[in-house]
Amino acid sequence: MKTRIGILGYGNLGRGVELAVSKTRDMELAAVFTRRDPSSVSVVSGVPVVSVSDIDLWQDKIDVLILCGGSATDLPKQTPVFASKFNVIDSFDTHADIPVHFAKVDEAAKASGHLAMISVGWDPGLFSLMRALTNAVMPDGKDYTFWGKGVSQGHSDAVRRIPGVKNAKQYTIPVEAALAAVRNGENPDLTTRDKHIREVFVVAEENADKDRIEAEIKQMPKYFSDYDTTVHFIDEETFKANHTGMEHGGFVFRSGVTGENDEHHHVIEFSLKLDSNPEFTSSVLVAYARAVKRLYDEGQRGCRTVFDIAPAYLLEMDGSEMRAHLL
Amino acid sequence: MKTRIGILGYGNLGRGVELAVSKTRDMELAAVFTRRDPSSVSVVSGVPVVSVSDIDLWQDKIDVLILCGGSATDLPKQTPVFASKFNVIDSFDTHADIPVHFAKVDEAAKASGHLAMISVGWDPGLFSLMRALTNAVMPDGKDYTFWGKGVSQGHSDAVRRIPGVKNAKQYTIPVEAALAAVRNGENPDLTTRDKHIREVFVVAEENADKDRIEAEIKQMPKYFSDYDTTVHFIDEETFKANHTGMEHGGFVFRSGVTGENDEHHHVIEFSLKLDSNPEFTSSVLVAYARAVKRLYDEGQRGCRTVFDIAPAYLLEMDGSEMRAHLL
Repeated sequence: MKTRIGILGYGNLGRGVELAVSKTRDMELAAVFTRRDPSSVSVVSGVPVVSVSDIDLWQDKIDVLILCGGSATDLPKQTPVFASKFNVIDSFDTHADIPVHFAKVDEAAKASGHLAMISVGWDPGLFSLMRALTNAVMPDGKDYTFWGKGVSQGHSDAVRRIPGVKNAKQYTIPVEAALAAVRNGENPDLTTRDKHIREVFVVAEENADKDRIEAEIKQMPKYFSDYDTTVHFIDEETFKANHTGMEHGGFVFRSGVTGENDEHHHVIEFSLKLDSNPEFTSSVLVAYARAVKRLYDEGQRGCRTVFDIAPAYLLEMDGSEMRAHLL
Repeated sequence: MKTRIGILGYGNLGRGVELAVSKTRDMELAAVFTRRDPSSVSVVSGVPVVSVSDIDLWQDKIDVLILCGGSATDLPKQTPVFASKFNVIDSFDTHADIPVHFAKVDEAAKASGHLAMISVGWDPGLFSLMRALTNAVMPDGKDYTFWGKGVSQGHSDAVRRIPGVKNAKQYTIPVEAALAAVRNGENPDLTTRDKHIREVFVVAEENADKDRIEAEIKQMPKYFSDYDTTVHFIDEETFKANHTGMEHGGFVFRSGVTGENDEHHHVIEFSLKLDSNPEFTSSVLVAYARAVKRLYDEGQRGCRTVFDIAPAYLLEMDGSEMRAHLL
């Protein structure tokens, strides 16, 4: 029997999950749950679209519910609530709040006898896994994480809130020289400004004061003031033609030493270059949903993260195939 | 109580394991076992050096025995034998023979109630794990593995067997253009010759026919005939000054697509740049030895590979530390 997946929230991430599930042979989409009027939501796969207020009726029909809401306001509330009704998985990505989120979800899942996973995606997610793995195999070393080139939704939103800004897109870009120094095993000490630059494309309202907008962007605390930021003003047409993508990516490095006198240097590098951040994140969620189902069937309960999942649980193929073809 | 490690075989790999264990806080080296006369082996850490014929006396004193022999002749015999007496871990790297080796070790470990791991290192090992992980999160894609720049012991040995060759070192080097095409998401079809070049440094015997040696190298089937090979003749002094290192490394790529019309491309890249192949491999073995002890304590028996081990088992830190600092 195929693993029956439910999707809660049908935005970019939800649509990505729908596509990713359709590419598997061992999973099927059972339903999409929405807070909107279900009749207003049309889904590619043609599965039922159900109001979230009716979700309890689906407890016997869903093996894993994939929560596709946002980390700012949706997931902190949703994941604990739905972990008490379903096996769930989310992509909660507010790093600092992970321990609290974990504790709540773990409690709800344990109390109700479900298995939950949080913070699955690429960072947190695959990048976290790389940090753990490379720390384990090279304990004497230093970690570096770079993000981009890619679109930061949060920074784009922040710029759009400035008066006179009609539309805006912010790109986070790793500094090439910093990447090269790390890749070269130089173990540099890098400030925030050394690691990333920010590039902003702005469509201004007619007659808006562009100098003021540029200054407001560059001085914005937390978001831009610690970075070298470039601001480009462009027209609406150029914006639509060139800046509607959702590309992202990044780099995780571990640079370390072994040897009696620490004389041997080693550099481990993991990188992602993604055309579509939400579709790739969805694809990671679906692979881990497979693991959630299998581990639930083995009797596991409570909350897990990527650290707790052996790679074999993520693949359709069985152990002997893996050993023959991937080892 | 610390995990007590035994080392069988005190070559480059065994010495690397000794160093790596000394850098942990939760493991200690108990003894080094050797087929040589123990009095002829002096170890850095000062632990007992014991003849392998006395190893049975140590069954209560070793939690995990790390087998540091070679894949050609040592490990195929040793790992099944010692898996019936100890929890063991090896770095067996003859890819084609892994299924047979696995079956033998699994049988021995299950019959005697031990836990074994085979093929732990970087390829097989970390590279295998990357192939599994990236296949799981990007099912619609293509794998590429490149090796180098690095020293191939097998190829160096093959050259040394040619009459007139006094000493030789072979470097495997990935072709930059092929790496660039893969990194760029072009999904090229690559032949053996397209992917790697081979560079050989030879110290010839006095009066040896260098043209004949070079021709013999370049025409050697399997080892060199499918590659573009460059041969350099150098003197003994230059050889000793520049070619005694054991550096290696390589790249694993997964290049794939998502989207309704496969319109979004993604490239995942993992790479290693290692000054010392044996010391890094040892370091990986020691991290997985930690997992073997923990999983044995949880009741697991039989043979495992890197696919079966969740990252959390590899680290000294506990789950909450991991979630706070690495997730």
